[in-house]
Amino acid sequence: MSHTNPYWSQLVHQLTPYVPGEQPKVENLIKLNTNENPYPPSPKVFEAIEQANNDSLRLYPDPNSDALKQTLADYHQLDTHQVFVGNGSDEVLAHTFQALLKHDEPILFPDITYSFYPVYCGLYQIDFEAIPLDADFAIDPRDYNRPNGGIIFPNPNAPTGKLLSTAAIESILKVNSQSVVVVDEAYIDFGGQSTIPLLADNPNLLIIRTFSKSRALAGLRIGYALGHPNLIEALERVKNSFNSYPMDRLAQAAGIASIEDETYFQAQCQRIIQQRTEVTEALDELGFQTLDSAANFIFTQPPAPHTAEAVAEALRAKNIIVRYFNQPRIKDFLRITIGNEVENAALIHALKEVLTPLS
Amino acid sequence: MSHTNPYWSQLVHQLTPYVPGEQPKVENLIKLNTNENPYPPSPKVFEAIEQANNDSLRLYPDPNSDALKQTLADYHQLDTHQVFVGNGSDEVLAHTFQALLKHDEPILFPDITYSFYPVYCGLYQIDFEAIPLDADFAIDPRDYNRPNGGIIFPNPNAPTGKLLSTAAIESILKVNSQSVVVVDEAYIDFGGQSTIPLLADNPNLLIIRTFSKSRALAGLRIGYALGHPNLIEALERVKNSFNSYPMDRLAQAAGIASIEDETYFQAQCQRIIQQRTEVTEALDELGFQTLDSAANFIFTQPPAPHTAEAVAEALRAKNIIVRYFNQPRIKDFLRITIGNEVENAALIHALKEVLTPLS
Repeated sequence: MSHTNPYWSQLVHQLTPYVPGEQPKVENLIKLNTNENPYPPSPKVFEAIEQANNDSLRLYPDPNSDALKQTLADYHQLDTHQVFVGNGSDEVLAHTFQALLKHDEPILFPDITYSFYPVYCGLYQIDFEAIPLDADFAIDPRDYNRPNGGIIFPNPNAPTGKLLSTAAIESILKVNSQSVVVVDEAYIDFGGQSTIPLLADNPNLLIIRTFSKSRALAGLRIGYALGHPNLIEALERVKNSFNSYPMDRLAQAAGIASIEDETYFQAQCQRIIQQRTEVTEALDELGFQTLDSAANFIFTQPPAPHTAEAVAEALRAKNIIVRYFNQPRIKDFLRITIGNEVENAALIHALKEVLTPLS
Repeated sequence: MSHTNPYWSQLVHQLTPYVPGEQPKVENLIKLNTNENPYPPSPKVFEAIEQANNDSLRLYPDPNSDALKQTLADYHQLDTHQVFVGNGSDEVLAHTFQALLKHDEPILFPDITYSFYPVYCGLYQIDFEAIPLDADFAIDPRDYNRPNGGIIFPNPNAPTGKLLSTAAIESILKVNSQSVVVVDEAYIDFGGQSTIPLLADNPNLLIIRTFSKSRALAGLRIGYALGHPNLIEALERVKNSFNSYPMDRLAQAAGIASIEDETYFQAQCQRIIQQRTEVTEALDELGFQTLDSAANFIFTQPPAPHTAEAVAEALRAKNIIVRYFNQPRIKDFLRITIGNEVENAALIHALKEVLTPLS
């Protein structure tokens, strides 16, 4: 809307909201567009929800989610005061921007990254500089040695899937000891090395994680942050000024159950990593150029003369949805979520047809 | 904290977070302090959660909660574009402050009201004027005829429980046609008359509701707003800049099921109203002065020489928790949630003991 509206705050007129990947309501789609897990959550999650589905739903949940925080702290060998939980990592990120990334200097993030970051900057009126990834779509730590009000990037990055080494992250942390450096580990469980060991020596490090990808609980909205108690306190102050009870009873119970089933979790992550290898090899054979991925998706360029946009449209006509970003630098790529064995076979089969027009 | 912290945004240093009513973790307490429903939610809610507790938890929820919005729109005979849903009414309120109540002029709300309102003002840096309730703890519409950037009050008000007439609300709406007037109907289902009929003629009216009280679903976090599509659009813009998926799959399913069981809902509300009458009469006999309540709690003053604070402490010693606010004007009152038949009998029994010291 270009006209002003007397009831809207000035901010609302300026907002450019985030557009999530489509959640189509039709059946029989192969949905490889929002990086969901192709396998179900742990059976223990279903049991925990069943047990919590009782008369106590009439009561408010624990506003501090103490049991979930304790479970996460134990799992990561941290103290509970180093853990913050929220209604999905998007909420945790929102509070982080407001609490820890709003300063006089602009914040820094890569030019190709999670596209919600500039939206948060709009919501909280934070200036930012988008730092170009290098020619290989990698983050170069040397580019983050300049005045800033904070730094944020996913590791592995999205939508590229590329991993940054712990040593590289450490160098960013050391050069920027006066700023908060946020590492968004939404996709870290698919073969990447977590930055958690750096928490002990870096009070400016905040790590953000989600149950939506590796824990197959996108439908329940559970995210968390790990960091120095001083950073966590800032998040708690904002959270307790926004919504006392962001985590419902069922989500708290399910989150605990998911963490407690480590065997299931590791097996499912390995299955996705194995599928990622197989999909990447099949795409290689079809002439696709695929970036090295440490995530549950791959970022891949179709062989000429096929454009990414045309391939995405042709797949959609075959009821397969992948994500295409019509943006500079990445308009030649598709982001394809790793599905299950059947879905991935269907994807490769469809791509063969798309690349070989009928004579 | 009085010292400045380089990692915290300026805002975080200034915040005074909300303190919710205690959620004790010990058993065998009679918990009459947070206005929860003493009866369970509809059996259909449990069934809906059971059905939604399946593999689809791996998938993101509908980011727009279309089915829940449609159910609410049908129930209230409105259009879906007049409905906004959020993760509890506290989240809906937060977005409302940011989207619709932040203007050049201060907003207005009663001096005695939901104590989260000034916290939201702190979070979004909104000036406010607290307008004193009259000597009978009532809102006088004539006090809201002054320049403002918006108006908000609960109806019935909290913690007084007092209801404002539809005619009085209409007069506030008409005088303030250039401002958004927010009526927080958290407690409207316990015998009050909703302001919903005024929506048709008042594009500046926003009504906020919760499933936490009358629908016995505090544990699931479901709130909503009703208003002109223009106001709803402002909330959607903020929501989509904050968190695409605030409502999880189980909450969306449970919310729909609750609305669909109207018979159960009405019966439970009537039960609470009946209990409120009985508790009030019993307190009358003990010499308490109780305000007329249209809520699921009563606001009551113990007979001299007993102070509210002392009575609250004495009840706690008997494992009954009520809410005491150590604030000007209301420090002589207790806010007591209406419990179930057994809890209310225990409350009255305990109060008799408290008021009659052993000789």
